[in-house]
Amino acid sequence: MNDRLDTPSVIIDTDIMERNIRSMADSAKRLGIALRPHAKTHKMPSIAQKQLDAGAVGITVAKVSEAEVMAEHGIKNIFIAYPLVTPAKIARAVRLSGQIELIVGVDSLDGAKLLSQAALEAGRELQVRLEIDTGLRRTGVPYDQAEALASAIHAMEGLRLTGIYTFRGALLGGKPTLDLQAAGAEEGRLMAELADRIRAQGVPIADVSVGSTPTGLQAAVAKGVTEIRPGTYVFQDRMQARLGVCSLGDCAGSVRVTVVSRPAADLAVVDGGSKTFATDVQPNTDPMQLQGFGHIVELEDAVLERMSEEHGMLRLGPAAQASGLKAGDVLHIIPNHICSTVNLHDKVYFKSGDNYEERAVLARGKLQ
Amino acid sequence: MNDRLDTPSVIIDTDIMERNIRSMADSAKRLGIALRPHAKTHKMPSIAQKQLDAGAVGITVAKVSEAEVMAEHGIKNIFIAYPLVTPAKIARAVRLSGQIELIVGVDSLDGAKLLSQAALEAGRELQVRLEIDTGLRRTGVPYDQAEALASAIHAMEGLRLTGIYTFRGALLGGKPTLDLQAAGAEEGRLMAELADRIRAQGVPIADVSVGSTPTGLQAAVAKGVTEIRPGTYVFQDRMQARLGVCSLGDCAGSVRVTVVSRPAADLAVVDGGSKTFATDVQPNTDPMQLQGFGHIVELEDAVLERMSEEHGMLRLGPAAQASGLKAGDVLHIIPNHICSTVNLHDKVYFKSGDNYEERAVLARGKLQ
Repeated sequence: MNDRLDTPSVIIDTDIMERNIRSMADSAKRLGIALRPHAKTHKMPSIAQKQLDAGAVGITVAKVSEAEVMAEHGIKNIFIAYPLVTPAKIARAVRLSGQIELIVGVDSLDGAKLLSQAALEAGRELQVRLEIDTGLRRTGVPYDQAEALASAIHAMEGLRLTGIYTFRGALLGGKPTLDLQAAGAEEGRLMAELADRIRAQGVPIADVSVGSTPTGLQAAVAKGVTEIRPGTYVFQDRMQARLGVCSLGDCAGSVRVTVVSRPAADLAVVDGGSKTFATDVQPNTDPMQLQGFGHIVELEDAVLERMSEEHGMLRLGPAAQASGLKAGDVLHIIPNHICSTVNLHDKVYFKSGDNYEERAVLARGKLQ
Repeated sequence: MNDRLDTPSVIIDTDIMERNIRSMADSAKRLGIALRPHAKTHKMPSIAQKQLDAGAVGITVAKVSEAEVMAEHGIKNIFIAYPLVTPAKIARAVRLSGQIELIVGVDSLDGAKLLSQAALEAGRELQVRLEIDTGLRRTGVPYDQAEALASAIHAMEGLRLTGIYTFRGALLGGKPTLDLQAAGAEEGRLMAELADRIRAQGVPIADVSVGSTPTGLQAAVAKGVTEIRPGTYVFQDRMQARLGVCSLGDCAGSVRVTVVSRPAADLAVVDGGSKTFATDVQPNTDPMQLQGFGHIVELEDAVLERMSEEHGMLRLGPAAQASGLKAGDVLHIIPNHICSTVNLHDKVYFKSGDNYEERAVLARGKLQ
């Protein structure tokens, strides 16, 4: 092992990544739907460019600072799918809208007024999409208030309301589900019907945009949906495999770790803990029922059971105990949630055959 | 609000931080014990220097890369309290040991051999401490095997074994506890007795080093303990307040967030989620029984109940609902775990009166 591959570090298998990028682009093409990947998973302009080259119409981000990094590196069509309400962020978005094709999210009358005022003061028009809550209870105007808000925003100077969007994840009737087909169908139908009702009020909604890696392709089947915004598909992860979206063999991202201690027959400690692996998708939560914080590629019956900041505790089953695992051995672990895991790493390593290339995660940790 | 204080961002109240630094240093002095703070909480050389100025004998880190950053910025006495087993890290540690007073952790014969060999090849002697497992089942040689391993390491060329150390947290008889006095007393007694037994074999153990913010001062009461390594005390956090170590008023760190959406009477969404707040101390886990992912300073009956990467969902009780909270309002949230929260932020803001000063978290995200 050389310095460059010291552990812990994130490895991206580029063959699998390219396959995932192509597969989603082909599916979108087949369905006649626009693909606007969420860059939150990779946070890297070079991968965003690959997604565009494969046919994506633009990308999605959550923060103005992410949009700025992407724009600096040549990405020219960006949707900030997040309600902007602070003066600093709005000013930066207005500025950026003079340099690239920018769309901004909005989900309230107060927020729309702030955007409108800033756009007018700058002598510009901002393209906006209205976020709809279709059941997740996160951001988004409540479904039954969306028509009235769309009309009000449509009437505002300085704003051009061109679409509606939602994010719901794998939810059905308000509850987490593994039935992605039903979840996606419901998501698509809700959005298509709403778009029609808003149009009936004279608001020309062009874009009807839905999530997500687990439900996007299912929702896109609904007539009237025009765009999907999946993010995780580019690398996939253990959560998506558990949802049935992919297999573990489709996961392009893993964390390379070293066993630093073998204090007991059933215990191995690796050099990655909660500073290395995201903990926002927790083990043993319904309905995911994931065991542990990641899938250990090399050991079939080991579970990454506990973590502190720099320690990952593996409980070893009989096969792992018989494997002769010792301090210094290297393992690869597919994390439960790759997006928030990548956010913990300043750099990742692109693996192609036996070659490893260091790449900076340029839009990592962009919070504002 | 100006650009510099856009949200989300970590605010450090410097008056409270200075008080925490002084208080721990005074307690250590009173007990006649050395203080070697763990820098994992702040990850900033300037704060490490404040701890040294207040009387600390040196600092503790977990990674060679953290030690390198600290050394570059003038910190000259560092204990890497982690078993080093990869060739790259060992080579860097040996190099660093020629520049500063460096101590390295070890917990196995295999690990000790690697360190010994690297030190001999470089013509150097590495000062090491043996990590002891006193019940957490993390790294550390099992308690009953420690005497034999200490003797073996003592006999190795290239290594100078000068101490033993442990980390256990708030644990008693192998189980999480809120009885910190009993937990600390047990931790201190176990370590002091072991040090005597190792000395009886002719190994001159000088340093007997124990954790931690919750148990360090209690463990230090045991005769024979010579050093404590608390980390979190510098900022404190909601978990420590729940443990009874401090009050919420002793928490120097909070996350400034903005309400971005008020979609329902009982729901407010803020612009910080799992990319902003660490999730490694989860709500509603025994015996912590913390409600939510942080304490909302301005709203007594609001709970940060759910998070996705960029969204924090606050469930509002009657008082919060009556407060007139609206999009654009700013809140401060004391996180459950400040150490892993700071690790998510490239910079923090030192607050002194009405003045805010931006400071880089120089040793953030150092994984190797």
